Amino acid sequence: MTGTHGGDIYTPLYETGREFLDFSANISPLGVPAGVLAAVYDAAHRLDRYPDSRCRELRAALSRYHRAPPDTIVCGNGAADLIYRLVQWRKPKQALVPAPSFSEYEKALRESGCEVLQPPLYERDFGIRKSVIDGITEKTDMLFLCNPNNPTGLVIPPDFLRDMLRACVRHDTTVMVDECFNGFLDDPACHTLEDALPASPRLFILKAFTKLYALAGLRVGYLLCGSASAAAGVAGTGQAWPVSSLAQAAGVAALRETSYAEAVRHLVRSERETMKAGLQDAGLSVIGGDANYIFFEIPAGSGFDRRRFFQDFRAAGILVRDCADYPGLDGAYCRIALRKPEENRRLLAAIREMRHTRKGAP
Amino acid sequence: MTGTHGGDIYTPLYETGREFLDFSANISPLGVPAGVLAAVYDAAHRLDRYPDSRCRELRAALSRYHRAPPDTIVCGNGAADLIYRLVQWRKPKQALVPAPSFSEYEKALRESGCEVLQPPLYERDFGIRKSVIDGITEKTDMLFLCNPNNPTGLVIPPDFLRDMLRACVRHDTTVMVDECFNGFLDDPACHTLEDALPASPRLFILKAFTKLYALAGLRVGYLLCGSASAAAGVAGTGQAWPVSSLAQAAGVAALRETSYAEAVRHLVRSERETMKAGLQDAGLSVIGGDANYIFFEIPAGSGFDRRRFFQDFRAAGILVRDCADYPGLDGAYCRIALRKPEENRRLLAAIREMRHTRKGAP
Repeated sequence: MTGTHGGDIYTPLYETGREFLDFSANISPLGVPAGVLAAVYDAAHRLDRYPDSRCRELRAALSRYHRAPPDTIVCGNGAADLIYRLVQWRKPKQALVPAPSFSEYEKALRESGCEVLQPPLYERDFGIRKSVIDGITEKTDMLFLCNPNNPTGLVIPPDFLRDMLRACVRHDTTVMVDECFNGFLDDPACHTLEDALPASPRLFILKAFTKLYALAGLRVGYLLCGSASAAAGVAGTGQAWPVSSLAQAAGVAALRETSYAEAVRHLVRSERETMKAGLQDAGLSVIGGDANYIFFEIPAGSGFDRRRFFQDFRAAGILVRDCADYPGLDGAYCRIALRKPEENRRLLAAIREMRHTRKGAP
Repeated sequence: MTGTHGGDIYTPLYETGREFLDFSANISPLGVPAGVLAAVYDAAHRLDRYPDSRCRELRAALSRYHRAPPDTIVCGNGAADLIYRLVQWRKPKQALVPAPSFSEYEKALRESGCEVLQPPLYERDFGIRKSVIDGITEKTDMLFLCNPNNPTGLVIPPDFLRDMLRACVRHDTTVMVDECFNGFLDDPACHTLEDALPASPRLFILKAFTKLYALAGLRVGYLLCGSASAAAGVAGTGQAWPVSSLAQAAGVAALRETSYAEAVRHLVRSERETMKAGLQDAGLSVIGGDANYIFFEIPAGSGFDRRRFFQDFRAAGILVRDCADYPGLDGAYCRIALRKPEENRRLLAAIREMRHTRKGAP
C-alpha cells in the first residue's frame, strides 16, 4: 500500500506461517501498560457511540501534561494521520525534508502535489550538516525534521534546531518537528522544542503514544501547535471522527503511566549500552542510538556479506529494518529496536552465528 | 472541528453534566455484538504491534462476504476516511453532490479545491428529480450519492441508479454510492449496486460497520471498488496504518454476527411502523424512513413552534438531528434514529408533552 516500514510482522507471517521476533519497529518492549489496557476494556462497552470528534478529555489531559493551552492541541489517528492533515491544511508548494528521515513526510507532501527537496542532513561522518539551514528560503513553505531522527537514532543538536527555527521565522516557513521518540531519550527535556511553541506560530511538534506506551495497534498521536488558529485549521481538516473512542481513552490513561514510562527509559538505557558493545564486538559500526533503537553500518571488510546479512536474520526468525530504501542510504545500513534483555541477546547470538556460518561456508 | 453531525453526545454532556438519550446518530440500538466485543478484548493484548497496513484478514473476510476479489476492497478509519482518500486519489476538479446528503462528501471535495455543484435531488414532494442525471457532463469528474439517503431515509429508485451509472460511464465520471445504511433496509439486496461493480471500473461503493453493528466509536469502514487498480490507488493514499488492529479484528468478527444483524433488522422493521404512526398522530409529516431513521417535517400550522421544537427535545434530555444545516433544507425538518421500543416511546411522549405545554402556554 505504501513504502516499506518497520513493524510489518504480517507479510512474513503469511508467507511462512511463522511468528518473527520483531526488531524492525521501535516500540516499548514492556507491552501495553495495565492501566491503559483497563481503560480500553472499559471504553469498549460504549463503542456504539461516536467518539468525541473534538477529543476534549484527551486534549484536556494533554494540556495538563504539556502545560499547553488545549486549543493548541490536535489529536489524530496516530501521528502519521497528523502529517497528512498538516500538509492538507498548509498546502505547501515546496518543502524541505532533509534526508534520511521517516518516509511519510515525503509521501504526504508528494500526494498533495508539493515539490520535495531532500538535501542530506548529515556530513559523511553523520555529524549534522549545518548548511542545511541555508536551504531554507522564501520558497520553502514547509520543513520536516525528526528529533531524535529516524532511522539514524541521532538527536539533532539544540543549537542547530534554534538556528533552523529562526530561519523558518525569517522565511515564513511552516516547520514540523517530529518528537515521537523524545520520550526514550535519557534527557527528554533538553531535546524538545516545546518551550519555543508560544513564540512560534508556525511551529508544530508531533508526538505519539505509539512508541513509548506500546500502542502502535491503536492509532493515537497528537500535534502541539504554535497557535490556536493553526490548530483549528489542522483540526478542521479531514473527517469528523479521526480518533476512535478507545484511542482517546487509552491516551488519557497512558498519561498517568509515569512509572511505566520510567521503567521503559531505565530498560532502554541499560540495554542500549550492552547492545552497542555487542554490535561493535561483532564488527559492526554503531552510528546512532540515542533513543530506543540503534542504527549501524555493516562495514565493507567486516566479514559480513551485506545482502546475506538481512536474509540470515530472516532465516533466524528475526525482523530488522534494512535501511536501503531511505533516500541517501544504501544496503549497508540497518536499524534495530531495543527489546527485552533476553530478546536482545538472541539478536546478538544470531549475528555471531551469521559470521560463523559465513566463515565455514564455501 | 467540522460541521454539525448527529451523535455529538459530548457537547451537551459537558455543557449540562447530564447524559442525553441520543436519537441524533443512526446506530443499531442493540449495542456492540458480544462476539465483536470479545474480539476487541482479545486483540487489545497485542496493541503493541502495528496493525496490518494491508488489512489482509479483514479484506479476506469481506471478500467472502461480498463475493468480491480481495484486491478490489480498501479498508478505512471509518467510512468517512475513505471519502477523503477517494477524493485525494481522484483529485476531481468538478463534482456533483445532489442535495441534501451527508455533508462529508462536500467537505472532502472542497478541502481538495474541487468545485462542488449541489443540485436538488428531490422534487418538492421528495420524489426523485430525474433531471439530476442531465447534470452529469464531461466536466463532472465525480458524483456522490447516498442510498438510502441521509438525512431523508429514502431509497433511490433502482432504475434511476442504473441510468445514473450509464451517464457516468458515458462521461468518464467517478461515482461513489454510499450504502452505509443498506443493511437496515427490509430488502438490502434490491438496493445495492454491488452486482454492477465488476463491469463498472469507475464505481465505488462505501460500506461501514459503524451503524449496523453499533461500532461508531471504533472507526472501521470499507470501499468496494470497480477495479483492482483503482483500489490500489485509493489504498496507497494517506498514511500507512489507517485502520487500528482492534477495528480490523472487530470487522472480521462482525461479519459472523448474522443473527445479530437479523435481530437489528427485525427490531427496526417493527419500530419503524410504530414510530411513523406516532409521529403522524402528533401532527408531524413523515417523509422517509426506509432504513433505521425517520425523516419528518414539522408542518406549518401543526401547532408546533419549529424553533422551540428542538429546544424542547433538549430540555427533555433527548438529542435529535435538526436538519437546518443541510443544503436545500431548513429548520422545518428533523431526523430521528429508531432505538429500542421503550426509548422510542419516551421520544413520542416528549413530543406529546411538547404540544400540551405549548397549548397551555401563554
